[in-house]
Amino acid sequence: MKSNLLSNIYNPADLRLLSETQLPELAKELRDFIIDIVSVKEGHLGASLGVVELTIALHYVFNTPEDLLVWDVGHQAYGHKILTERRENFDTNRQLGGISGFPKRSESIYDTFGVGHSSTSISAALGMAIASNLKGDFEKQHIAVIGDASISSGMAFEGLNHAGVTDANLLVILNDNAIGIDPSVGALKKYLTAVKEGKNPKKNNMIKSLNFDYSGPIDGHDLTILIKELDRLKKIKGPKFLHIVTTKGKGLQQAEENQVKYHAPGKFDASTGEIHLKSEENLPPKFQDVFGLTILDLARKNEKIIGITPAMPSGSSLKFMMDEIPERAFDVGIAEQHAVTLAAGMATQGMIVYCNIYSTFLQRAYDQVIHDVALQNLPVIFCLDRAGLVGEDGATHHGVFDIAYLRAIPNMIIYAPIDEIALQNILYTAQLGLNHPIAIRYPRGRGVIPDWEVKNFGHYESVKIGEGKCLKTGTKTAVLSTGTIGNNVTQAIGECTNPDLIAHYDFSFIKPLDYRLLKEILSSFERIITIEDGTVTGGFGSAVLEFAASNNFKNDIEILGIPDAFIEHGTVNQLQQFCSIDVKSLRNLFSNDTK
Amino acid sequence: MKSNLLSNIYNPADLRLLSETQLPELAKELRDFIIDIVSVKEGHLGASLGVVELTIALHYVFNTPEDLLVWDVGHQAYGHKILTERRENFDTNRQLGGISGFPKRSESIYDTFGVGHSSTSISAALGMAIASNLKGDFEKQHIAVIGDASISSGMAFEGLNHAGVTDANLLVILNDNAIGIDPSVGALKKYLTAVKEGKNPKKNNMIKSLNFDYSGPIDGHDLTILIKELDRLKKIKGPKFLHIVTTKGKGLQQAEENQVKYHAPGKFDASTGEIHLKSEENLPPKFQDVFGLTILDLARKNEKIIGITPAMPSGSSLKFMMDEIPERAFDVGIAEQHAVTLAAGMATQGMIVYCNIYSTFLQRAYDQVIHDVALQNLPVIFCLDRAGLVGEDGATHHGVFDIAYLRAIPNMIIYAPIDEIALQNILYTAQLGLNHPIAIRYPRGRGVIPDWEVKNFGHYESVKIGEGKCLKTGTKTAVLSTGTIGNNVTQAIGECTNPDLIAHYDFSFIKPLDYRLLKEILSSFERIITIEDGTVTGGFGSAVLEFAASNNFKNDIEILGIPDAFIEHGTVNQLQQFCSIDVKSLRNLFSNDTK
Repeated sequence: MKSNLLSNIYNPADLRLLSETQLPELAKELRDFIIDIVSVKEGHLGASLGVVELTIALHYVFNTPEDLLVWDVGHQAYGHKILTERRENFDTNRQLGGISGFPKRSESIYDTFGVGHSSTSISAALGMAIASNLKGDFEKQHIAVIGDASISSGMAFEGLNHAGVTDANLLVILNDNAIGIDPSVGALKKYLTAVKEGKNPKKNNMIKSLNFDYSGPIDGHDLTILIKELDRLKKIKGPKFLHIVTTKGKGLQQAEENQVKYHAPGKFDASTGEIHLKSEENLPPKFQDVFGLTILDLARKNEKIIGITPAMPSGSSLKFMMDEIPERAFDVGIAEQHAVTLAAGMATQGMIVYCNIYSTFLQRAYDQVIHDVALQNLPVIFCLDRAGLVGEDGATHHGVFDIAYLRAIPNMIIYAPIDEIALQNILYTAQLGLNHPIAIRYPRGRGVIPDWEVKNFGHYESVKIGEGKCLKTGTKTAVLSTGTIGNNVTQAIGECTNPDLIAHYDFSFIKPLDYRLLKEILSSFERIITIEDGTVTGGFGSAVLEFAASNNFKNDIEILGIPDAFIEHGTVNQLQQFCSIDVKSLRNLFSNDTK
Repeated sequence: MKSNLLSNIYNPADLRLLSETQLPELAKELRDFIIDIVSVKEGHLGASLGVVELTIALHYVFNTPEDLLVWDVGHQAYGHKILTERRENFDTNRQLGGISGFPKRSESIYDTFGVGHSSTSISAALGMAIASNLKGDFEKQHIAVIGDASISSGMAFEGLNHAGVTDANLLVILNDNAIGIDPSVGALKKYLTAVKEGKNPKKNNMIKSLNFDYSGPIDGHDLTILIKELDRLKKIKGPKFLHIVTTKGKGLQQAEENQVKYHAPGKFDASTGEIHLKSEENLPPKFQDVFGLTILDLARKNEKIIGITPAMPSGSSLKFMMDEIPERAFDVGIAEQHAVTLAAGMATQGMIVYCNIYSTFLQRAYDQVIHDVALQNLPVIFCLDRAGLVGEDGATHHGVFDIAYLRAIPNMIIYAPIDEIALQNILYTAQLGLNHPIAIRYPRGRGVIPDWEVKNFGHYESVKIGEGKCLKTGTKTAVLSTGTIGNNVTQAIGECTNPDLIAHYDFSFIKPLDYRLLKEILSSFERIITIEDGTVTGGFGSAVLEFAASNNFKNDIEILGIPDAFIEHGTVNQLQQFCSIDVKSLRNLFSNDTK
């Protein structure tokens, strides 16, 4: 009978009632459970399969939730969620109103720290450990589980560097599977590989240099070894570091063999592992591919073009260029800060650098954008993928602050293309030389032009910097949109009661604003509606208000966008509904306006 | 005769005409020159004295400006500036219209990369080196000079981690003097100290683990050794790492003995080194000391209170608490990202954490503020020192973006005290439990209440969150200020033609805004002026506009603050004039209003 052991486990207290010999069977059941649900409900697969044994061992050996366990990033925490009171609603994973795809404090006492972005676990767990010491609790254990891709990020190093001079009861577990979402890169990865292959003397390794009690590498799929080692470490005070070796996707052959694809494979056959391919016929292209194909095409023609991604070659589609022109396309690992300043350094030497970073991750390099790029007015081209609402990844991943935080920076150009053609044209225009840094923000997922590649790809037109556009004339109300949310506006106007009354303007340039056009609009329309898929606090709408105020316009201006709150997970459409910027909400609003 | 050799050097080409035996004499002259000027004109002393020999050796051995030299932070670059065409106007250092206190691309071809914030040099120089390779120039050298405090920051690690797997002609020189502005901390520092003391086998050191060709440690004050080693390294391809040992303040006894004080000592006697003490009698306290004394006082009474500074114990005055309650006051090194998430981790365990970070440096931890603190709504107390215009440190250091970038974050409270009393009261109130993160921003330098410590210190009043205040009634125009710039307003109103016409409101709370008061003001005054010492793009003024727009107010609203441009160096008053927010500009504006 399936799920014999697992079905009796509500939380780790139940797990600890099992004998150690039962645990391999539990691991099998847990793995099957994850595969069964994720194959139907989608989600992050490979990482969680890789730490099934570790997850069981941690909750078996340590006294969770008293002992505090922090999962870095959290892609790998499905097993943890299932063993900690969320087995029954695990099938709501990543759905609106369901459990989050990442550990989340408000969801469970076992989720000690909310994660999503990488490399935070060591700092967070160290903070907890120091707090315990101060409270006189010297027994409590604090454990950070971090992957080899995440530990290469600067923030993790900062945490290790501090922890090494404390007496905190911190256990850092390096889950070394040589891959993040894409294969790990960098000198540390190379070093760790050498350690695993026995090529480095263990006595004086890097981690020991940082004053940690180092042990490993050990087999992270061997429960006996794991439990023995964790039992030993539990009794040691101070900062400890355990290096375990695992296989991402462990237990599902195809996931082991194609780790990038099975990071988050979508729906698949639970028994064969076969991915259910959706027909892509007649679908518009992904913006990612528009970027990837366009930069490759441009780079073929211009030797100065360089592409940079911090650890997202597949996600960003920079992979196309990395495959064909590897000497000019760089995956620098999870290192957004470095990525930006590296781009700045290249730009000083006349290179044309496209630095592709997800909007939410550019938050990690805000200072570098200000201090190393904009202050020196270096013409770095930032391609902010996954701007706006990203859907199921939820609050940690929405790219909704970028307009506000970039708009405050002098010298920046900010552009949000409305569609695939606009994206390819701005990518083309940027390499003609703007004499300023530019941020091009575009969303996750597909555009609106099914035959873009056939009809438009490669037919470049240069974009006039700072120029807005009238998409549709109208007589009563002017709607000013920026970016792809403009397509919702177009559709909503088409569906509303009296479309002739609504004018629609595309302000792809958020900075510089098209002041000439804006003045014309403010002079012609009493009522203005702005709409953006970013926060309304300091965003595009505020830019319009600032201009209106400084030019003594007194129009009615209504600002639509993401409210001043963290938006949870759900489909993009559900979340747009929540923010009243979906087609239906807009149609209702416009219909009201045109009554 | 003084400055015999130095006076004949316009740029490094002249330097290279000297024989190696003349260089020690040049070093002496250069040191004297720095001391002579800085003793009168003020500036950063110790760091530049420490690298006099290195500076000479680098420009002697390498073919600058063809070879590209990046100074990390740039405090140490005075000798570099003097040897590279700026000897004659070095006495304008840090003054309005004069040369910058930091390397700056627009100032000189020898300044290959603008710096100010730490740990950017490796990434920047690597970017340059990769660009050279792509251009087919395999001879050009690219050198990053970085201190031991800066190299401990995560960003530097990211740069090393990438560089180690490239074949770039990058030379990283670690200038190890065991101190940043305050003494260095952390496990890496401990490790480097052991290396210097010969306690670590050189064969397998940490830097070698990252795939660098490592040499050193060598004496950074011995020109013969330095030149020989640089000559050798010049011929080696790929990433190289040279570890040199220097003494900060070298050559001025008092500067060597009191390295923290002589980092930037103000005016001093060039021959004796004696600092010219200014009388502090009857001066208002520094905001830094208000913070330092208050947190110490509060921490004495509440065991849950913790203080964190990333490498600024002296600058922030957290030092008072570190001296008395070291177990609860942490200098984590130059590691803003870690500092913020460490604070978040502690806050999950019920600790009350004051995380003191300069406004400009919090840009380094923007993601951590969003993702680790605000998203989880953890009540971390951010104390943003040196908010607003900082004066002579200039464009890299002004804390003028914080209002805009923090305002976009949900759950944040943002408060800018108008004076010392307001600062101490909000620090007191914060530990009573706000259930939200708060950012308290206050400027560099002194307040306005000379007898604050005697009269007010320790007399706490709790602040009502979100409440604004009428400071002065008036009949025609309402001025809404936030923070200490409000004192300019008060003074300007007092000096203007018809002060009765001007009302003045203190909106210390930028978020949440006092909507009740704001509504009242918008209903009562046709004309509103907002004023802040932050960018006008998305700042406090925009918050007022957003509220007015969403409540259908049609007032005239004028927004004063820092324009959308990078502001150079000068005194704070000069820079306020430039931004038209000094007392005189405000008086003129108000007088116009009251005609």
